[in-house]
Amino acid sequence: MTAMSDNDTREDLLAARAYLLRVAEPPASALWRFVADQGPIRAAELVRAGKVPVAVAKETDARRALDPHQDLRAATDCGARLLVPEDPDWPQWPLLVLEQRARWYRDMTPPLALWCKGPGDLDRLAVRAASIVGARAATGYGEQVATELGYDLADRGWTVISGAASGIDGAAHRGALSARGDTVAVLACGLDQDYPSSHAALLRQITATGLVISEYAPGVRPAKHRFLVRNRLIAALGGGTVVVEAGVRSGAANTAGTAHRLDRPVMAVPGPITSAMSLGCNTMLRAGYATAVSSCGEVIETIGGYVTDQERPDSPSRPTDGLDRRELSVHQALDRIQPRSMAKLAVESGIPLSSVRAILPSLELCGLARRTEEGWCAPN
Amino acid sequence: MTAMSDNDTREDLLAARAYLLRVAEPPASALWRFVADQGPIRAAELVRAGKVPVAVAKETDARRALDPHQDLRAATDCGARLLVPEDPDWPQWPLLVLEQRARWYRDMTPPLALWCKGPGDLDRLAVRAASIVGARAATGYGEQVATELGYDLADRGWTVISGAASGIDGAAHRGALSARGDTVAVLACGLDQDYPSSHAALLRQITATGLVISEYAPGVRPAKHRFLVRNRLIAALGGGTVVVEAGVRSGAANTAGTAHRLDRPVMAVPGPITSAMSLGCNTMLRAGYATAVSSCGEVIETIGGYVTDQERPDSPSRPTDGLDRRELSVHQALDRIQPRSMAKLAVESGIPLSSVRAILPSLELCGLARRTEEGWCAPN
Repeated sequence: MTAMSDNDTREDLLAARAYLLRVAEPPASALWRFVADQGPIRAAELVRAGKVPVAVAKETDARRALDPHQDLRAATDCGARLLVPEDPDWPQWPLLVLEQRARWYRDMTPPLALWCKGPGDLDRLAVRAASIVGARAATGYGEQVATELGYDLADRGWTVISGAASGIDGAAHRGALSARGDTVAVLACGLDQDYPSSHAALLRQITATGLVISEYAPGVRPAKHRFLVRNRLIAALGGGTVVVEAGVRSGAANTAGTAHRLDRPVMAVPGPITSAMSLGCNTMLRAGYATAVSSCGEVIETIGGYVTDQERPDSPSRPTDGLDRRELSVHQALDRIQPRSMAKLAVESGIPLSSVRAILPSLELCGLARRTEEGWCAPN
Repeated sequence: MTAMSDNDTREDLLAARAYLLRVAEPPASALWRFVADQGPIRAAELVRAGKVPVAVAKETDARRALDPHQDLRAATDCGARLLVPEDPDWPQWPLLVLEQRARWYRDMTPPLALWCKGPGDLDRLAVRAASIVGARAATGYGEQVATELGYDLADRGWTVISGAASGIDGAAHRGALSARGDTVAVLACGLDQDYPSSHAALLRQITATGLVISEYAPGVRPAKHRFLVRNRLIAALGGGTVVVEAGVRSGAANTAGTAHRLDRPVMAVPGPITSAMSLGCNTMLRAGYATAVSSCGEVIETIGGYVTDQERPDSPSRPTDGLDRRELSVHQALDRIQPRSMAKLAVESGIPLSSVRAILPSLELCGLARRTEEGWCAPN
């Protein structure tokens, strides 16, 4: 579908993809199908010439005169490059699900290319990846959980995908970075924009070791609809999406909804019902829409990955665990201070005296009963 | 099954049931079946004479010489009465499920009678009832949620069933009482015992308007296995069971498990994954074992009742909601146990002493601070 003829150079391909990526506001479903049919270079020529079906013209007419070389130069200037589906590190497999869903949902149309900044190989990074999303106005609780999840996932070799926003996103990225692990930020604006500005340093850090990606050319500013469009990439690139904190209507809930439509596991971190920031998560849990997760191990387990470090909330064992019902009754009839006779213990526990006689010495052996001169006691 | 012959008086019946209730340690499945077959008066005679099948003898031999009149007198002395299955206010319908489950689970055997204290009609109270259970070592969060749930349920005419323990149980009862609503405490000891002793006043309050009930005769002390046995009554009397806070292995989880075996809805309140006291709830949610509930409306909806006041998950209100930043700071500097001087509170809160002097009395007026001889405390 995206085959190049022998005469086309990589420069031609990049120019064509850069042009197609910007000529329509993503997600442009008619254009995407047109490119799949015609190949990128011919599709770009036809779009520029206006020789396209009506549906494609509707998506592209406003911008068809644009010069893609300007975007490519601006990208080079800010240290970014264009990753195209023809590249070996294009995340073919993770994005395949968008291609499938695009048949029913126009807003699930795959990206025509991706601007990238950083040394990471996106295809490799997406092999074992989890998306962590959540409220911008996160609470201390949410930020703590996101940081720990980010750290633990990265520490186990998982890539943390998020949106670089304030609050949960930033905490998840930072957690991954502090584990010296892999993290990918998917932006809703050009890679030359530091958005939010308070995350300029964070974005530089991610760029240094991981990857910052976007469908939007340098210079494109963030806008509300771009966040929603961007969310499908976050949902698709992660093997599952964890919502750490979210209000009732939120971008995070939108990403979760997208993950759901992509049949990727949706997870939610339970939180206090008294916290407005956990309302979205708790509502998703009540509706059975999300699986509750409380740890990195549970996230990996839910995504279906190999849990490297079996992390169970192991239940503490008690000394009385091995006792049967009758032994337990006798044990509980013992007082720590007041010694009791066997007869008294039989009445107290409701266990026949003959059994009490047999049970007490065995309890004594396990250190669960204490013999005194005046009778039997519970151990100190 | 429990028919009396015409010659038997109510006194005979009460003496027989009181005897049967104490002669075996509940739940005594063989004795229960024996009583169902023989009727209570004849069953009591046969047990006393030792003319019973081996299974019944095993359960009853240790105590068969006991005098039930002693228990009946002790009950009268402490203001309690014996409620028997032959009474019109016996909760036939709620307890029927135990009778059914007792075929498979010996520990689900129904009670042979119930000691009751208070003006309530148990059968009527159980028509619209929810059980609220949880950790003794509850956090402030758990107690707040239990109090609000108890209040809201009672306020809507629902009965709050719980176990009168410290922590969640007590908070749920108190919430119901402060709504001047119905609440039933099911004890694991005799009704003359104030257990826990810190709840003596609470138990008196419940007794004044609601009902305190127990399978255990006056004088019987609480014991671990009795709590577990008691839990089946809590689970059966509520139309569903809400776990507000629970550790991994807890009595509350046991009650939830019982409710589950009774096919009654099990609900859990989500909580911070960083809180050990929410671990049990969050684990049940993850396992799909419990339904997440965040409000009284959701509890009623889950039980399948008619939600009288459509309650959207609107952001919950707190007693401290109306406070400004300075009032809140002073409030948070208060300790529940350790009284603090105004000077100390000024340092602790960072609010000037002159303001602290003005703020404390107004907090006291709203019930958010408590004046003691040694200084100021948070309310109990």
